[in-house]
Amino acid sequence: MKLYNYWRSSSSYRVRLALHFKGVPFEYVPVSLVGGEQHQSAHRTRSPAGYVPVLEVTEDGKATFITQSVAIFEYLEERFPERPLLPKALSARGQVRAMAELINSGIQPFHNLSTLNHLKSLGVDEKKWAAHFIDQGLVALEALAKEHAGTFLFGDTFSWADCCLLPQLFGGRRFGGNVDACSTLVRIEKHCLELPFVNAARPEAQPDAQPA
Amino acid sequence: MKLYNYWRSSSSYRVRLALHFKGVPFEYVPVSLVGGEQHQSAHRTRSPAGYVPVLEVTEDGKATFITQSVAIFEYLEERFPERPLLPKALSARGQVRAMAELINSGIQPFHNLSTLNHLKSLGVDEKKWAAHFIDQGLVALEALAKEHAGTFLFGDTFSWADCCLLPQLFGGRRFGGNVDACSTLVRIEKHCLELPFVNAARPEAQPDAQPA
Repeated sequence: MKLYNYWRSSSSYRVRLALHFKGVPFEYVPVSLVGGEQHQSAHRTRSPAGYVPVLEVTEDGKATFITQSVAIFEYLEERFPERPLLPKALSARGQVRAMAELINSGIQPFHNLSTLNHLKSLGVDEKKWAAHFIDQGLVALEALAKEHAGTFLFGDTFSWADCCLLPQLFGGRRFGGNVDACSTLVRIEKHCLELPFVNAARPEAQPDAQPA
Repeated sequence: MKLYNYWRSSSSYRVRLALHFKGVPFEYVPVSLVGGEQHQSAHRTRSPAGYVPVLEVTEDGKATFITQSVAIFEYLEERFPERPLLPKALSARGQVRAMAELINSGIQPFHNLSTLNHLKSLGVDEKKWAAHFIDQGLVALEALAKEHAGTFLFGDTFSWADCCLLPQLFGGRRFGGNVDACSTLVRIEKHCLELPFVNAARPEAQPDAQPA
């Protein structure tokens, strides 16, 4: 399996966490978002929308590209169920997926690169914009965490929701969100960052990482 | 099961399509987004973020609220697998989920009510903004459709991707997107709108629908 991704991309970081948690070997292929590689034709054949991450998988001898972190995650969960990232009970699975979606569709789209570029072209302060949506989303997530969290975002087992949380807090600080207001989320993050598989997935640990 | 939702909400319409396709009976509970009911405390206990749709389910005698259309969909697919909305092959499931996500996280967040209200407060032309993201996303989806579509968005079987497509084209027209430029998507929509279960899920057919 090959993962086309970018060290600092939030949704790339999510998928790396899932892969490292499951212990699935993969080839890391960097796609430079600041260098515009996502718009080049080689990458557009993998993702017509020009997105990262993309997972290249082989099924029945045929290579296929799976885009979108949520779709990649569900693929990994179905193909490698031995170390699950979702609980067993149906409604608990629903809660984990809902927390992940609050980040995936409720926060992250508002501070991805193409959104920020469009805001700049309209003369809107893109940092203020990003912080508004990050703070609004994290407050809602903190409320869900107070209800469901244990050591991790849902109970005491690392899940797909944690795979989304860590990149969101990383991105939240980068764009000036008030991350420290969410004490439950920050406590979970602190615990996660001590785990070896999390460290292996962190942006700073990737081969294409740039110094701050 | 109860579905808290709003007739014109795009993600509510997605979940209604899934429920009507599967033939699962549910109680329709309207939450007026224009009336601000999503912000009232009764609804905030169901969804701290103030979102619709919310599915209320009972598991082991306990009522639980599941938020986020994608999480609700996966719940329905796992609980009612008899009439599936995903294909069987793992990579094909990935393709359907990726098309759904292109809409769910790649288009819809940019034209939901709270985004449009925030744009207005910043003095940005919110209709132009919405059309920009709708057109950009639909062009990428049309490219995927040319690769994967048959009678429906993925092959010849109605799927979760179609559940996302129909509301997106409905919303796309509402916000001035150039929907007709995407001939494959429009052809699929035309076919879908002739199906009785689709008609039952349409915004205009809901008890809280308002005349145009």
